[in-house]
Amino acid sequence: MSDIAGRPRILINGNFSDDKGDHTQRLSALDRGFQYGDGLFETLAVSDGVVNHWSLHWARLCEACERLFIPTPNEVQIRSEIDKVLAGVGKEIVKIIISRGEGVRGYAFRHVSPTRVVSAYPWPDLPKANATQGIALFECRTPIARQPALAGIKHLNRLENILARHEWNDARFAEGIMLDMEKNVIEGTMSNVFLVKDNILQTPDLSQCGVAGITRQRIMHVANEKGITLEVKEITLLQLERADEVFVCNTVIGIWPVNKINQIRFDVEEEQNPVTRLIQRAIA
Amino acid sequence: MSDIAGRPRILINGNFSDDKGDHTQRLSALDRGFQYGDGLFETLAVSDGVVNHWSLHWARLCEACERLFIPTPNEVQIRSEIDKVLAGVGKEIVKIIISRGEGVRGYAFRHVSPTRVVSAYPWPDLPKANATQGIALFECRTPIARQPALAGIKHLNRLENILARHEWNDARFAEGIMLDMEKNVIEGTMSNVFLVKDNILQTPDLSQCGVAGITRQRIMHVANEKGITLEVKEITLLQLERADEVFVCNTVIGIWPVNKINQIRFDVEEEQNPVTRLIQRAIA
Repeated sequence: MSDIAGRPRILINGNFSDDKGDHTQRLSALDRGFQYGDGLFETLAVSDGVVNHWSLHWARLCEACERLFIPTPNEVQIRSEIDKVLAGVGKEIVKIIISRGEGVRGYAFRHVSPTRVVSAYPWPDLPKANATQGIALFECRTPIARQPALAGIKHLNRLENILARHEWNDARFAEGIMLDMEKNVIEGTMSNVFLVKDNILQTPDLSQCGVAGITRQRIMHVANEKGITLEVKEITLLQLERADEVFVCNTVIGIWPVNKINQIRFDVEEEQNPVTRLIQRAIA
Repeated sequence: MSDIAGRPRILINGNFSDDKGDHTQRLSALDRGFQYGDGLFETLAVSDGVVNHWSLHWARLCEACERLFIPTPNEVQIRSEIDKVLAGVGKEIVKIIISRGEGVRGYAFRHVSPTRVVSAYPWPDLPKANATQGIALFECRTPIARQPALAGIKHLNRLENILARHEWNDARFAEGIMLDMEKNVIEGTMSNVFLVKDNILQTPDLSQCGVAGITRQRIMHVANEKGITLEVKEITLLQLERADEVFVCNTVIGIWPVNKINQIRFDVEEEQNPVTRLIQRAIA
């Protein structure tokens, strides 16, 4: 939980970063997270001190560590650090960053000890209407590069998302949609995207790029449980625009129906959005 | 210059990071350089306190700032910070990192104050024979993603290079060659690459990906001065293997002739390497 408005409480390798007098409590400028974006993160939703879907987040964190050749942190230690930063009441966000740690100059690494940063943020004040009346999507021009070596994981190389998010500064757009160089829809700047067409739920294939979100994973599970046909495939912007229903999702926003992409409007009333509403209720 | 072996002297926003008792002298974990790799860097060669090719490095730093929408730092201030970290004798390396600075959670940014990190490292003890007898190149399997929004600049999203560099741990390879997804040669993990075929100097086009190095730029200038025909173009691995001469370059290594790529050997004797040797002397 934050100690002043919007400012998180942060533990760096188990020490509070806002304590006085101990240098180990702030980051070294030689940390490879800072030097190269060499690491990964997870964003968790917490309700009254309970982390939602911990096992899914932990599994993804472990997969990202493995793919980046970073030793997996100790789960008990991380859980105890999460408990330390939480206020324990209401809704909070916890962000875990694992970087490769402090290194010498150069890209090569060996026997580096990872840095753990665990932070708790106040739950953001998002417009409640986004979940009911839907949002407009901005079409970002910054492409997502195809990079299978990094696809799916939530690594710290996020300049693409930052440049895409910087393309608009108009509050009418709550999210932007990102395409790859072949104009396939990949994801939102901070969310995953789904469409419904002829009662089939579809979401972009993320084997070449994009972050495979935990809420996306939960939705795929819900679709299976509810008997909704799901296709993970290449999806063009035109297919998205011609869908019956479109929504974006992540851990913090949940599910936001999309009511507008470029000049195309979508009716997000319950009767026109049966699949989105069904999944929204199941995920809540 | 380093205070203990291999450890650099570091100024963060003008303050020495190794001074005691002042928190502002270490990095905030909320710095977007650490959170997202949101920034850029330059690596400078310094001889007896004099920065080599400052104006070229400064111009590239400014271009990178502009492309990432980071306010350009004050040149006089940066120069004065470089002077502060230098020992002033012999050869040294200075690394400048400019990150977007400390931010709130999320990719959006506005009115953020950049972080400057200026560090001096001892000159590395590189094998002198690399410049004369040449080096073997490892063929990396980690691809470089095509991303025109980031191509050319020396940004802090370096996971591709890190994963590529991690593919080999055999001292017989002094550098690895990286290809894009279409198997075009782009660069070394830490260097640019040139080939000579039928007296024409060629280097990969970096408009889609790769870092446009300062030494590469100087070589292109030298080629122009010496009347050597230069082509900047798509180059396949096969073309590289069938070249008459191949070399890699960067600010720290200068020019290293390549004597082996996969099973192909190159004769790096003076008479078989006239263009490489001419450029090597001109650049020295």
